[in-house]
Amino acid sequence: MIVVMRPGASETEIDGVKKLIKELGLKDQVIVGTDLTVVAAIGDERLKDCAVMEQAPGVSKVMRVLAPYKMAAIETTGNQRTVVKLSETCVFGGKQVPVIAGPCSVEGEQEIMEAARQVKASGAHALRGGAFKPRTNPYAFQGFGEDGLKMLAAAREETGLPIVTEVLTPSDVELVSEYADCLQIGTRNSQNFKLLEACGKQPKPVLYKRGMSMTIDEYLQAAEYILAEGNPNVILCERGIRTFEDHTRNTLSLSAVPELQTRSHLPIIIDPSHGTGHARLVPSMAKAAVAAGADGLAIEVHQDPKHAMTDGAQSITPDQMDGLMVNLQRVAEAVDRECIPVEQMLGQV
Amino acid sequence: MIVVMRPGASETEIDGVKKLIKELGLKDQVIVGTDLTVVAAIGDERLKDCAVMEQAPGVSKVMRVLAPYKMAAIETTGNQRTVVKLSETCVFGGKQVPVIAGPCSVEGEQEIMEAARQVKASGAHALRGGAFKPRTNPYAFQGFGEDGLKMLAAAREETGLPIVTEVLTPSDVELVSEYADCLQIGTRNSQNFKLLEACGKQPKPVLYKRGMSMTIDEYLQAAEYILAEGNPNVILCERGIRTFEDHTRNTLSLSAVPELQTRSHLPIIIDPSHGTGHARLVPSMAKAAVAAGADGLAIEVHQDPKHAMTDGAQSITPDQMDGLMVNLQRVAEAVDRECIPVEQMLGQV
Amino acid sequence: MIVVMRPGASETEIDGVKKLIKELGLKDQVIVGTDLTVVAAIGDERLKDCAVMEQAPGVSKVMRVLAPYKMAAIETTGNQRTVVKLSETCVFGGKQVPVIAGPCSVEGEQEIMEAARQVKASGAHALRGGAFKPRTNPYAFQGFGEDGLKMLAAAREETGLPIVTEVLTPSDVELVSEYADCLQIGTRNSQNFKLLEACGKQPKPVLYKRGMSMTIDEYLQAAEYILAEGNPNVILCERGIRTFEDHTRNTLSLSAVPELQTRSHLPIIIDPSHGTGHARLVPSMAKAAVAAGADGLAIEVHQDPKHAMTDGAQSITPDQMDGLMVNLQRVAEAVDRECIPVEQMLGQV
Amino acid sequence: MIVVMRPGASETEIDGVKKLIKELGLKDQVIVGTDLTVVAAIGDERLKDCAVMEQAPGVSKVMRVLAPYKMAAIETTGNQRTVVKLSETCVFGGKQVPVIAGPCSVEGEQEIMEAARQVKASGAHALRGGAFKPRTNPYAFQGFGEDGLKMLAAAREETGLPIVTEVLTPSDVELVSEYADCLQIGTRNSQNFKLLEACGKQPKPVLYKRGMSMTIDEYLQAAEYILAEGNPNVILCERGIRTFEDHTRNTLSLSAVPELQTRSHLPIIIDPSHGTGHARLVPSMAKAAVAAGADGLAIEVHQDPKHAMTDGAQSITPDQMDGLMVNLQRVAEAVDRECIPVEQMLGQV
Repeated sequence: MIVVMRPGASETEIDGVKKLIKELGLKDQVIVGTDLTVVAAIGDERLKDCAVMEQAPGVSKVMRVLAPYKMAAIETTGNQRTVVKLSETCVFGGKQVPVIAGPCSVEGEQEIMEAARQVKASGAHALRGGAFKPRTNPYAFQGFGEDGLKMLAAAREETGLPIVTEVLTPSDVELVSEYADCLQIGTRNSQNFKLLEACGKQPKPVLYKRGMSMTIDEYLQAAEYILAEGNPNVILCERGIRTFEDHTRNTLSLSAVPELQTRSHLPIIIDPSHGTGHARLVPSMAKAAVAAGADGLAIEVHQDPKHAMTDGAQSITPDQMDGLMVNLQRVAEAVDRECIPVEQMLGQV
Repeated sequence: MIVVMRPGASETEIDGVKKLIKELGLKDQVIVGTDLTVVAAIGDERLKDCAVMEQAPGVSKVMRVLAPYKMAAIETTGNQRTVVKLSETCVFGGKQVPVIAGPCSVEGEQEIMEAARQVKASGAHALRGGAFKPRTNPYAFQGFGEDGLKMLAAAREETGLPIVTEVLTPSDVELVSEYADCLQIGTRNSQNFKLLEACGKQPKPVLYKRGMSMTIDEYLQAAEYILAEGNPNVILCERGIRTFEDHTRNTLSLSAVPELQTRSHLPIIIDPSHGTGHARLVPSMAKAAVAAGADGLAIEVHQDPKHAMTDGAQSITPDQMDGLMVNLQRVAEAVDRECIPVEQMLGQV
Repeated sequence: MIVVMRPGASETEIDGVKKLIKELGLKDQVIVGTDLTVVAAIGDERLKDCAVMEQAPGVSKVMRVLAPYKMAAIETTGNQRTVVKLSETCVFGGKQVPVIAGPCSVEGEQEIMEAARQVKASGAHALRGGAFKPRTNPYAFQGFGEDGLKMLAAAREETGLPIVTEVLTPSDVELVSEYADCLQIGTRNSQNFKLLEACGKQPKPVLYKRGMSMTIDEYLQAAEYILAEGNPNVILCERGIRTFEDHTRNTLSLSAVPELQTRSHLPIIIDPSHGTGHARLVPSMAKAAVAAGADGLAIEVHQDPKHAMTDGAQSITPDQMDGLMVNLQRVAEAVDRECIPVEQMLGQV
Repeated sequence: MIVVMRPGASETEIDGVKKLIKELGLKDQVIVGTDLTVVAAIGDERLKDCAVMEQAPGVSKVMRVLAPYKMAAIETTGNQRTVVKLSETCVFGGKQVPVIAGPCSVEGEQEIMEAARQVKASGAHALRGGAFKPRTNPYAFQGFGEDGLKMLAAAREETGLPIVTEVLTPSDVELVSEYADCLQIGTRNSQNFKLLEACGKQPKPVLYKRGMSMTIDEYLQAAEYILAEGNPNVILCERGIRTFEDHTRNTLSLSAVPELQTRSHLPIIIDPSHGTGHARLVPSMAKAAVAAGADGLAIEVHQDPKHAMTDGAQSITPDQMDGLMVNLQRVAEAVDRECIPVEQMLGQV
């Protein structure tokens, strides 16, 4: 931590800062500049509330030196990338770029079964579908709950695709964990720390979406809630942030891919459906994500988007998905990755 | 809902939109413009997923006409403002502008007792203090839990001030509701809908903070989760949004006060501590909030901010609080409101 | 400047950074921490491109210590506040809080004369009105140009109010400077550095609006373009920033007032009209601005906002202005400032 | 334009709105809904100030139907894409994806000559370099001016690469136009409408960068200032917007590429250097841009970024550029585009 003093700060003020630094269990080192004095605090500041130093007389500002996360940091694994496996043909963090596809919500037994068959035929590697839905509007469809989980399990039975589904609250974690191959924590719960903890205590991998107003530091720090409980299988998912830009539902900055890969060992995937909010923009951004080096994709697909119960505007059709998968494979190869359709992988296994 | 067609949209495309509108249970009305055609959908669109219309061929964009909330809307009460009462001397939504004050966290039995006495002496009308803390960092102090609630209750016993404290997860709602006079839902849980529902089912008033990337529409829509469960005693609290601006922790736009008062019957208070993140900016913004017409304030006060366990940088001292309360009373009078110190009110009661 | 090295950076890498620091004409000081090493660069970094240090091997990040402005900094005047005088009764930076009022555009000779009389009757201290208009739309009304300046001058002649009007491009500066008492640089030209320089070279005070995506640092740094050319009479004007918030045209954070007053000696005024974009929000935000300590206000007033040629949605009527001025005076007194109506001041002079 | 009335708006209020609509030269059509009434205004609203309707009694809100630009709209060319040619081997808007490369600033005769040779050897199609620099800091290097233009011309002479360089103010347009093959308007001047007009009046193509807080609508509307003066050769350039995200200098949302291509006939290129601000993120984002369908790239390259006079942190080295061009060609092919190195094209011509 670096404490910048005001120009003309007195010796007494500098001594006050040195005392506070010692109280925090850190060591101080004073740097006398031409315009002002700076006091460096040496030691592990990650658990300290550095900002409090602002309240000491004569202090102008305080700057952190260490990123505030530990287990998520790439140094922790000696630059080894974490590999998260949902099934033999759906592994995140390696050369292959798996695609999770399916409808926003599980809309019925037949619907999800049909969706599973279609996304498999397109080449996708996992099936998504919400049984518990966090709806902005309290009067809107909230999902089928446990029945939805059963429908997903039946679709997995039939297609072999692992299933990814959202969990909304700690008391549902055990239930969802029984059925799902991967638990999703959505953007609205990105700082629901009790939920993160609960997901850290169960054995299934966690797909943890970035909050729409979280910085990268806050995101990795919150991911520690899962890691710190003993679950190392965390997949990060960028789905766009909230900005003034209104032609998209969210603003999807793909620079988060190389940035997160530099800072953390966890795989990072992209959700171009929520990231744009419009089906017409999804294929371009999916291809761009793979070109940027993403470790996977999560894409909303619906047989009949106009009649989807949720998120229809951003769902592409199975036909569009077929075409997109062909293109993703080409782009993956152009950047020395692979996006081999699941059926073809199964032929190889 | 207004569906704007692309220039040159065909009759078939317009018919497709009309059909979709009918399927939603709405009535269509076509408006033929000079450059393009628009189809209006007549009926209650609030529960409909209007965006899905985008997927119909020939559609350029879709615009909602009705705000997506109902019970929170000012029309619902016939423009009558809701009054929420924490105690005889702490009533939100009337002429008086009550001030909730206290430390970010309950830091010990003596500490909170001392804090309660001080904020009462300053003139504040309720005591705040966190027993359950949502911390960005998993390794940071997480609060005393139920013991913290007991310390708050003891402080209320002694001072008579009602207590406001945060609840983090549905399974704690019953417990917190037993002790607190008002449950706080924090910004990180602003779209934790399961928590909102749980707070809607218990009898105590709820102080519901806006999420840092929520629009006003989303905020009122989420407030409905509480209202719809039968709890009408909701206090809205603006605490700043996240923007590119970095001289403050959040960007506190006081225009939310007149805007929310125009749209909703619920009282709206301001939290200048989180809204700025720096103690030095709190007094100016507190006074500005009252001048803008806020129905109350929530202010972090700490005996020794440099040593606060949480949020020290934004906590003012009891001395500063004394001075601020005098100024708030003057500003309140200048805008035909009142901010009478609690002791003086008790003398009057 | 503080250069943070990566964990495990080598001696050679640290030496490379030290060399670069020396090349910049600065002195290095190494701080060996528990987790990583930091190199401080001592000397005046304000004219240096610190970010370039990022490109040196082993560097994790670079942090500036000194704010990048000089003449605008409060230290430069020894904490003395700059006072900018447009007329005897319109002085910014003292106890009085002057109000600049008038229509967005000069719409005609009679119109601006009538407007001048009305705002003077309301108590305002200066007349605003655009003769050159920066319009988002190229086909929209662009102002009357020099004729507009003449109409403004006639209105000053009649009422005695000083006039504030915008200048769009360097080649118009001389012309506008001949007529106006204060040149306005609008938000769209906030980083039109050639225009800032040109305004720095002429003798009239400059009302310099913040850009809608400028940080406070960038704002004060750009203000230096005017100051550095020899014109010390700069009035800062916060008019809102661009954020995701869409219930207002811009997001007006009044915390800029105490923040700018802490950092700079220049007076800072608020424009609640552009800051909100809606006439219904202007009075609340104007009162809040004064309570926050603003040194002045700029408010759009129009006889018939529904028929205003520009910015009608955010213009209040003369009647509303009358009422607002009474309230502003009350709020000003509540925070130990003054907002005495101009006629009354003239009586006193 | 759609005018939404308040619930319970009176007949008189609706009549008032109808009258205002007629005054604007538009036709009204009333739609009586279940909850409220809406009045549609039929006719070309693009030149009208719709927002003013807000001030009419009983109005709740006003929504535009038509996008506010005309000549930039894709409908104007009958969905034909505009092709902008800087040279035989540098054509924007076709199958080829040209790359503009070079240093931020022209730093000397030899330096720019060497840079030109290097970017040509890497395969780039045009040379960039600033002779006039808009610097945030008034004390920073401002460019060599006309001498810089001459150095650029010499580099073109030697390499055959067309040159792209920035112009800052209307009075320099003629001069820059004499030397440059393409004039660049930077983000800080994106709403300097006088400069846009001046560039519209000269014959060279214009590379027009999006402002960092401009919406897509505002961007295309401002581009009309150039088009409306008679210059059809406008290249749009997305370089990132300003958001709360701080790991990058700007937030670069590539969804602007498909969105702008849907709305406008103008070519759209990406600047990943300013879009990220960090050299380490540039290659990923450059590849992603091509995968997203961008019509070109603008990349900052410097022989020795650590010693660059400007923007060193975001400049890649010639070696990195060599590698990147190979990768861009592969990605371009994967999305059915081409990014053939200039030497190879010349061999073909």
